[in-house]
Amino acid sequence: MTKNPELISSKNNTRIKQVRLLRQRRQRQLSGLFIVEGIYPIGEVVAAAFTEPARVDIEAIYYAPELLSSDFANSIIEKVSSQGVDCHAVTADVFLSIAEKENPQGIIALAKTRNWQLHELGPGNFSWGVALVSPQDPGNIGTILRTINAVGASGLLTLDGGADVHHPNAVRASMGALFWHPVVNAPFSEFATWATQHGYVVYGTSAHAEKDYRQVPVYQQPLILLMGSEREGLSPAQRDVCHELVRLPMVGRVTSLNLAVATGVILYEMLDKVN
Amino acid sequence: MTKNPELISSKNNTRIKQVRLLRQRRQRQLSGLFIVEGIYPIGEVVAAAFTEPARVDIEAIYYAPELLSSDFANSIIEKVSSQGVDCHAVTADVFLSIAEKENPQGIIALAKTRNWQLHELGPGNFSWGVALVSPQDPGNIGTILRTINAVGASGLLTLDGGADVHHPNAVRASMGALFWHPVVNAPFSEFATWATQHGYVVYGTSAHAEKDYRQVPVYQQPLILLMGSEREGLSPAQRDVCHELVRLPMVGRVTSLNLAVATGVILYEMLDKVN
Repeated sequence: MTKNPELISSKNNTRIKQVRLLRQRRQRQLSGLFIVEGIYPIGEVVAAAFTEPARVDIEAIYYAPELLSSDFANSIIEKVSSQGVDCHAVTADVFLSIAEKENPQGIIALAKTRNWQLHELGPGNFSWGVALVSPQDPGNIGTILRTINAVGASGLLTLDGGADVHHPNAVRASMGALFWHPVVNAPFSEFATWATQHGYVVYGTSAHAEKDYRQVPVYQQPLILLMGSEREGLSPAQRDVCHELVRLPMVGRVTSLNLAVATGVILYEMLDKVN
Repeated sequence: MTKNPELISSKNNTRIKQVRLLRQRRQRQLSGLFIVEGIYPIGEVVAAAFTEPARVDIEAIYYAPELLSSDFANSIIEKVSSQGVDCHAVTADVFLSIAEKENPQGIIALAKTRNWQLHELGPGNFSWGVALVSPQDPGNIGTILRTINAVGASGLLTLDGGADVHHPNAVRASMGALFWHPVVNAPFSEFATWATQHGYVVYGTSAHAEKDYRQVPVYQQPLILLMGSEREGLSPAQRDVCHELVRLPMVGRVTSLNLAVATGVILYEMLDKVN
């Protein structure tokens, strides 16, 4: 039995301090752990942990009985504690010290990332991927993962650093999609070599491309949709890696779309055209 | 000459306190003023203020000479001060007390909204609009305005409250689009009456709609794309107002898209199909 009946009531409890530390990217990287918050995302991380093969590990759950009124959440705690996951009850006060959201629902999971490496991915398990060059906004990353899941694409590469895919805002925005897809960070140069070796068709976006994204009759798999960063777009060297450049028409004053919107528009265009 | 040579060096200066108060929605509503921050957005608000007819008024500009290295920004200050706008130099310290962004570029404008009313809009000046029911996230509102501008749609209605379109995150995410389009907040019931009176075709989204959004051969103008809130989608009563319900296909586990992504995908589908 790993459902711990002893209520943690001190914010200085070692475990509680560890959870708070996970707000820092460096601590997430060192430990491989990240925070999942909210009832729906926790339902998803539990589903992803107890599927075959497991996509993610759940290290522990912290919940505040005073705050947690959801039957669904309580049934999750029963389920995962019976599977051997440490579940710790904490006071509302302690919970608020670890919660990220303004209106916490009273339950947090610590999950452990499955650390994918680029060489583990290929056309067999990653036929339709998105690659983001140095994305700056964690919310955009999570939103793009959500869309990747919605269209049935394979997963996400983030290239040359950028924001952390396990930032709480990214986890939240992904609506659970983060747990189900391979996500890899790699240098751009490694990505370029890998894509060539595996015969990926790389589609990039550029405001100056001649071809409208709707004019592409077939998006040939295995494929990567390569998107530049929010501010810079793709550099000339990055555009050179692309087999085809497409543009999104812009008829107003703005010269670009939000990154997650641009990616979403193209992913939905691809939905019926990937081959 | 309204370029004020006297450097404001006190955070307790009355004007500076007024700027800080505009972080509060209530103060924005009372004064009709909102903050525009960053060089690019300020370029846009100046363009929108000095076009014919003016879309927005600029009340004042605050800039920190120590922080402001951009020639473009300095030329804006010259231009608007010669047009009679109050431009106040402030110390870096004072500027940081009014800046919203983490890396302030050293210039803020106070702009005054043009208060559109629903009865001023109709098929003649608003042939292709988006209506959001109680949108919760200011970033989504701004991102949707950016996409509205990109596709050449008319403007935005927000219905039954929701987040403030002049929240700094909305202003920032809109990339200036906010200044160029009519934006109206109205109760849903007023919207429904207005839409019927003017013969608008209302397209709504629903996960349960039979028709895929790509199957609509023509999106008939004048039209409104009606989107439900982030959490709730459209209620049955709101769906009843729609002439056509469409769905976005979802092939993964997530059951919905981010609101700005869903709106963007449909607006881009409409781009060649509005008639």
